[in-house]
Amino acid sequence: MSSQSAHPTLLIPGPVEFDDGVLQSMSHYSESHVGAGFVATFGETLSMLRRLFQTTNSASQPFVISGSGTLGWDLVAANLMEPGEAALVLSSGYFGDGFADCLEAYGAKVTKLEGPVGGKPQLADIEKALSQNKYKLLTVTHVDTSTGVLSDIKSVAAAANKVSPETLVVVDGVCSVACEEIAFDEWGIDAVLTASQKAIGCPAGLCISMFSGRAIAALKARKTEPATYFASMKRWMPIMQNYEAKKPSYFATPSPQLIHALNTALKLILARPLSERFQRHKEVANKVRKAVTDLGLKTVAINDEDRSHAMTAIYLPNKVAVTEVLPKLLDKGVIFAGGLHKEIATKYVRFGHMGVSAVDPKRNDVDMAIKALEESLSECGYSKA
Amino acid sequence: MSSQSAHPTLLIPGPVEFDDGVLQSMSHYSESHVGAGFVATFGETLSMLRRLFQTTNSASQPFVISGSGTLGWDLVAANLMEPGEAALVLSSGYFGDGFADCLEAYGAKVTKLEGPVGGKPQLADIEKALSQNKYKLLTVTHVDTSTGVLSDIKSVAAAANKVSPETLVVVDGVCSVACEEIAFDEWGIDAVLTASQKAIGCPAGLCISMFSGRAIAALKARKTEPATYFASMKRWMPIMQNYEAKKPSYFATPSPQLIHALNTALKLILARPLSERFQRHKEVANKVRKAVTDLGLKTVAINDEDRSHAMTAIYLPNKVAVTEVLPKLLDKGVIFAGGLHKEIATKYVRFGHMGVSAVDPKRNDVDMAIKALEESLSECGYSKA
Repeated sequence: MSSQSAHPTLLIPGPVEFDDGVLQSMSHYSESHVGAGFVATFGETLSMLRRLFQTTNSASQPFVISGSGTLGWDLVAANLMEPGEAALVLSSGYFGDGFADCLEAYGAKVTKLEGPVGGKPQLADIEKALSQNKYKLLTVTHVDTSTGVLSDIKSVAAAANKVSPETLVVVDGVCSVACEEIAFDEWGIDAVLTASQKAIGCPAGLCISMFSGRAIAALKARKTEPATYFASMKRWMPIMQNYEAKKPSYFATPSPQLIHALNTALKLILARPLSERFQRHKEVANKVRKAVTDLGLKTVAINDEDRSHAMTAIYLPNKVAVTEVLPKLLDKGVIFAGGLHKEIATKYVRFGHMGVSAVDPKRNDVDMAIKALEESLSECGYSKA
Repeated sequence: MSSQSAHPTLLIPGPVEFDDGVLQSMSHYSESHVGAGFVATFGETLSMLRRLFQTTNSASQPFVISGSGTLGWDLVAANLMEPGEAALVLSSGYFGDGFADCLEAYGAKVTKLEGPVGGKPQLADIEKALSQNKYKLLTVTHVDTSTGVLSDIKSVAAAANKVSPETLVVVDGVCSVACEEIAFDEWGIDAVLTASQKAIGCPAGLCISMFSGRAIAALKARKTEPATYFASMKRWMPIMQNYEAKKPSYFATPSPQLIHALNTALKLILARPLSERFQRHKEVANKVRKAVTDLGLKTVAINDEDRSHAMTAIYLPNKVAVTEVLPKLLDKGVIFAGGLHKEIATKYVRFGHMGVSAVDPKRNDVDMAIKALEESLSECGYSKA
């Protein structure tokens, strides 16, 4: 059986379809996690992440830890915050709310700003909040996977750096890294958290993050020790530094196969200019947006400038149920995801269009999915009024 | 390139060599983590873990979470302990000490019992400690990967259940599950933690654990909320229960590829009686032990009954350095690990003999490694006195 044997095309907002070479790397023969071969692969992987995040500041520190994207929230909450400190959470859906829950689990005092469903907090409100209270950090979800709402992290970081320069700017980039631009140094960002299985195009199982020198300094300046072990950045930092210096090091066993797959995925990404990759994701997102409009439907994201280029959340016609349309899509070889935002979960579907499905010219996943959506809605008795 | 293309045989105490079918599963095509196909695979995997751990009590709860074995320590420390509560840690090396560090990171008061290097705490001392103080839980490292010392967890659990029945018995089974017997129900164990990349024979990247109904009750009876998010058993429990009931569920994205590989590995293990598997690991360990004796060398484990069947830690002859012998072994296609226990790290090597290298009759990994060790020592100028 080929690992890529015929299968429905996975167009949910992560995991995504994988390049054959990436999947091949997943079945790499067994290696020691401290052997010279794997150490070189892991070190190279960490260095490539610096390029992906567009940071050349040697004080920036990448981390790759076995786990899911959610573990990235714990890294921030456990290491950058001390119990009782204040965090400002900008929420544009389920994942913004989740970050707030995680911060509170570690004892942070959280103030949450949110927009309406399909919207995001306004810059004026963010600046006001930052000027009225001292926040150790603010979090912003770059693309909220529940709504497909894109936040303008460049403007948010600029506002924070201006109004409250001591506040750390933390970006949840789970559904944005490798498809939306993130200029880590230039935009003044202190942390970006992501996962392997979205636009990076590697199977799930890795928590990937980048922290600024300012964030590391905040960690070192803590008055209390972080109450975590596996998520302790202090314990992982020398390990990551050693791997990148091609020296074996041990805290907890990494997954050589997943690291090989990530290495392959990053090489594919970095073989072309990042700007081209971001542009291609924009073009594909615009195509999906036009198809949605042509069908007489609306996206969950209310404003045009808030629509992500990673995925599109689409309101179904009134009389068409999610449970009716998803099986019809599957019959046509396409997998979309159902809704996740609790206030509207039964009313919309999510169409992921990132990674190889967007950038590999040999694939026509997105065109095929648009056609399948049109046909499925038609079979459900829907026609544009 | 075949994923299993010619490579040196990995005989460290994890990761281990993998069965071809397990590696093939690693490159499974992309699936939704909430799609029916993957949900069935994950559910079946959880049910198979009950058989591996020999528990038929429906109150027992398996967990499989992206992470390393170390994350298992956090599960215990964050969920079963509240800050200020007391834990008794039985240490037979680096990993017993690590568990103590993790418990302390979460605010536990730790009492540590340890034997000499190569030994373990004595049962009488354990009983005495349990009778003198009230401990919320005790931890015992079944096989300490740094020393190859095997603990008698059946006797430890029996002693704890007799002397201090309210104390939870927690076993670190990272280097023992699937090669040393663990009768979870019969022996009165409350938690076993392990990782995917050791005797289970799946690539690294999964934290695997089993908790008793008593442990779950202790979690529910907490006065304070656990200060963790990703390691929160309360958040994961309904997810695991839903997957096992074949219902989609979401807290954080699991790794479909690793779960497929684990599923394949467990099917291979459970296709034969577990007793046969444990017996085979004993035979292989005895063969290694005899070879060590024949070479005039000593194992780090002092007493015969304390020698694990997963791995053997072997003191090198006085004049042979670890850095001299490991490259010679590699020349012969064999990878051993260096030492890890800080007091003796430069004096010994570790030989892992678990998983397919022990049980697959088509392989002669262990015989080849014994021969390579003999030749390498000879090349280093060593001959038995």
